[in-house]
Amino acid sequence: MLPNGKIAESLYIDGAALLDKVESSALLIDCSTVAAASSRRIGEAAKQRKLRAIDAPVSGGVAGAEAATLAFMCGGEAADVEAAKEVLTHMGANIFHAGPSGAGQVAKACNNMLLAIHMIGTAEALQLGVDNGLDPKALSEIMLKSSGCNWSLEKYNPYPGVMDGVPASRDYSGGFMVKLMQKDLGLAMEAALASQSATPMGGLAAALYNLHAGQEDGNPDLDFSSIQRFFGEQS
Amino acid sequence: MLPNGKIAESLYIDGAALLDKVESSALLIDCSTVAAASSRRIGEAAKQRKLRAIDAPVSGGVAGAEAATLAFMCGGEAADVEAAKEVLTHMGANIFHAGPSGAGQVAKACNNMLLAIHMIGTAEALQLGVDNGLDPKALSEIMLKSSGCNWSLEKYNPYPGVMDGVPASRDYSGGFMVKLMQKDLGLAMEAALASQSATPMGGLAAALYNLHAGQEDGNPDLDFSSIQRFFGEQS
Amino acid sequence: MLPNGKIAESLYIDGAALLDKVESSALLIDCSTVAAASSRRIGEAAKQRKLRAIDAPVSGGVAGAEAATLAFMCGGEAADVEAAKEVLTHMGANIFHAGPSGAGQVAKACNNMLLAIHMIGTAEALQLGVDNGLDPKALSEIMLKSSGCNWSLEKYNPYPGVMDGVPASRDYSGGFMVKLMQKDLGLAMEAALASQSATPMGGLAAALYNLHAGQEDGNPDLDFSSIQRFFGEQS
Amino acid sequence: MLPNGKIAESLYIDGAALLDKVESSALLIDCSTVAAASSRRIGEAAKQRKLRAIDAPVSGGVAGAEAATLAFMCGGEAADVEAAKEVLTHMGANIFHAGPSGAGQVAKACNNMLLAIHMIGTAEALQLGVDNGLDPKALSEIMLKSSGCNWSLEKYNPYPGVMDGVPASRDYSGGFMVKLMQKDLGLAMEAALASQSATPMGGLAAALYNLHAGQEDGNPDLDFSSIQRFFGEQS
Repeated sequence: MLPNGKIAESLYIDGAALLDKVESSALLIDCSTVAAASSRRIGEAAKQRKLRAIDAPVSGGVAGAEAATLAFMCGGEAADVEAAKEVLTHMGANIFHAGPSGAGQVAKACNNMLLAIHMIGTAEALQLGVDNGLDPKALSEIMLKSSGCNWSLEKYNPYPGVMDGVPASRDYSGGFMVKLMQKDLGLAMEAALASQSATPMGGLAAALYNLHAGQEDGNPDLDFSSIQRFFGEQS
Repeated sequence: MLPNGKIAESLYIDGAALLDKVESSALLIDCSTVAAASSRRIGEAAKQRKLRAIDAPVSGGVAGAEAATLAFMCGGEAADVEAAKEVLTHMGANIFHAGPSGAGQVAKACNNMLLAIHMIGTAEALQLGVDNGLDPKALSEIMLKSSGCNWSLEKYNPYPGVMDGVPASRDYSGGFMVKLMQKDLGLAMEAALASQSATPMGGLAAALYNLHAGQEDGNPDLDFSSIQRFFGEQS
Repeated sequence: MLPNGKIAESLYIDGAALLDKVESSALLIDCSTVAAASSRRIGEAAKQRKLRAIDAPVSGGVAGAEAATLAFMCGGEAADVEAAKEVLTHMGANIFHAGPSGAGQVAKACNNMLLAIHMIGTAEALQLGVDNGLDPKALSEIMLKSSGCNWSLEKYNPYPGVMDGVPASRDYSGGFMVKLMQKDLGLAMEAALASQSATPMGGLAAALYNLHAGQEDGNPDLDFSSIQRFFGEQS
Repeated sequence: MLPNGKIAESLYIDGAALLDKVESSALLIDCSTVAAASSRRIGEAAKQRKLRAIDAPVSGGVAGAEAATLAFMCGGEAADVEAAKEVLTHMGANIFHAGPSGAGQVAKACNNMLLAIHMIGTAEALQLGVDNGLDPKALSEIMLKSSGCNWSLEKYNPYPGVMDGVPASRDYSGGFMVKLMQKDLGLAMEAALASQSATPMGGLAAALYNLHAGQEDGNPDLDFSSIQRFFGEQS
């Protein structure tokens, strides 16, 4: 699980050249969250050497790893993903096969982009309600049972005082940091650039997280639901 | 259930002046979807006349009304909303008390704005995945069990061929029309203007639905999940 | 020159009923910046009473008034706008006839929306250049002579230290305040709502100014080029 | 002048290895529009070999080249840019030194991003005016002399029938094609990703051009001012 594509490519190919050193029976499982292009390059290099390799970026955090409830989004041959399950199920509850090499990265980028969009949308909707006289708890209850429902609202309410045990209830400490969301949105934008896909909402989410991160020194280390603060004061 | 605030205000106050004609024991339940300002004006005029009145905009469509599964989002006195339940439960499964007069309108505007945001976000994420080689069904499955999950993805997948029985599987006919979403987003924008709330995602959703509606003559009458088409061809 | 449409309508029609008191030969020139709908209502009420009335919102600020370089954007009959010039030229250098009653307001809303868009765009482009190692002065020089050129860059460079005598060179004091831009963008959004026009850039500009205004207590009183600060530190 | 960074890097370094073949006195002037990272890599490789090299992307089109009015935005050592002028002035009227190696690319990306932003903003403002009853010519005249003024409005009015001799007056044929603007916005987004700069307006411009390009088969080949069509019918 390495921090970026350059380092991953260096490990497997350019620098340490792991692919030239492992046994031919090895199954390489890369859990780094990097650009799909990096994973594809590693996947192809492995294929040329007749090695089995999959990309398997993960979501769920430290708590998910400890509770063995992580989700692994895998790209590569179906048989290799199947074989990897033997190991991955010890850490994760959901092992998905997203498609060929690199597809695990694409799936994670799409999912986290959508997460960022509905997190910001939820923060925006709650603040709009509060600014127009509604109680954020009452509004949350209504939207949870209506068509506005989404994971951010249900598991991770960003408005302080509405839900217990979430980062919003402890000054946005812990959780999934803003800077990690910035990284994942960067990867989604990289994928969109590669395919010239239009991502108006995703692009705006990336810009808003960059703006939020830039407003205060500590913001990049806060949980990503702290985007609520960007929309207004909750004194 | 009247089409706009001007007509509703005309019925109750300015024109037909219903408030001056009903019996004092009447409980007025207005199910129109209009600006909160209109509902508040009607609510206040009723109060001055010592009449009971609530705003109770609805979501769920014709099918919901027939199946008695509508949601009513009510604004007004708690006791009046409670009294209205006797009638409303015959049509709806969820009768919410959102707050004082006008709060039903605000709650509906917030909910539908959030719905538009995650619908567009879902369409965008699915197209980004497809453009990068993923199968929309596989990607939908992954996001459904991950943090990208939301009502649009779960109940109303906008990508053709992924889910049975939804508008996307029948050329976006039926369902909740684009022009109705335009109206609801307009009401959300009106609320945001009144409170100078920042709604970057909501404002962008409103612009994208207006653009989508303007591209083809028939678009305003398509289901609102047809925004998927705006993002690309699915031939 | 009144602060909002409600007050203007109250002066002319609902409250003080000025239109019922002035001499029939009067030419009423309303320089308030208000919604076009308000100006149209006043214009029609004047017409019914066979009075001459135009809307003539102004741009250029206190300095422009003192130097007689204001711009007046007028809506109403051509002959009435012509007649008004006798007075207006004492304060302004450009007296425009935008169209029928209310058109002055629409023209000003469009212009100021476009101003907000290129001001933010300019701030964003300068910061992107600086973040990638460019000197803001050198980049400004290049864009001034290239297709990126616009009024904000030419007359009102938002980056501190690039241009003398502008608000950016004095900590964004003086000038056209953020809160006034928020008001004008609100009027543009009101016009867009009335016509269901798509304004993705204008809507985003409105959201960004609302966000900027909400980050710090004093921001609403800063000059509107302070949006540069929203994009990053210039220490 | 090569189409992308991979090809440019292949010419100078990886493939044809031009840098290993030219005379030591050579001054290499690369006029390709590519990512700053590519130009920097070529610049550094040249430096290691003690060769002089600059990046000098150009703006102005075929007509500008013929009339010798191109603008060259140069990155590299000041002395090398100065030396290059001997050649470049035969084709261009403005030879800018933007900064060190790669800075020419950054300057062009910033400028063209700003161009896209005010072109879309201008289209949007004109359509908003028209939708609210204004004549596009009258509105253009007003904004030209007011703070909304920008290069798109002044030299390249996107509304059909307002200005002679521009693409809008010939069904958006000729000019700077949508697909070239998509490429340049992609390079701006790549620069923003590299520096984690927030570019809300630039990102939205990129998304809107991608959406516009995807609506009709021929759109990518139209002039970029055809974004006006995206905003509405001008029948």
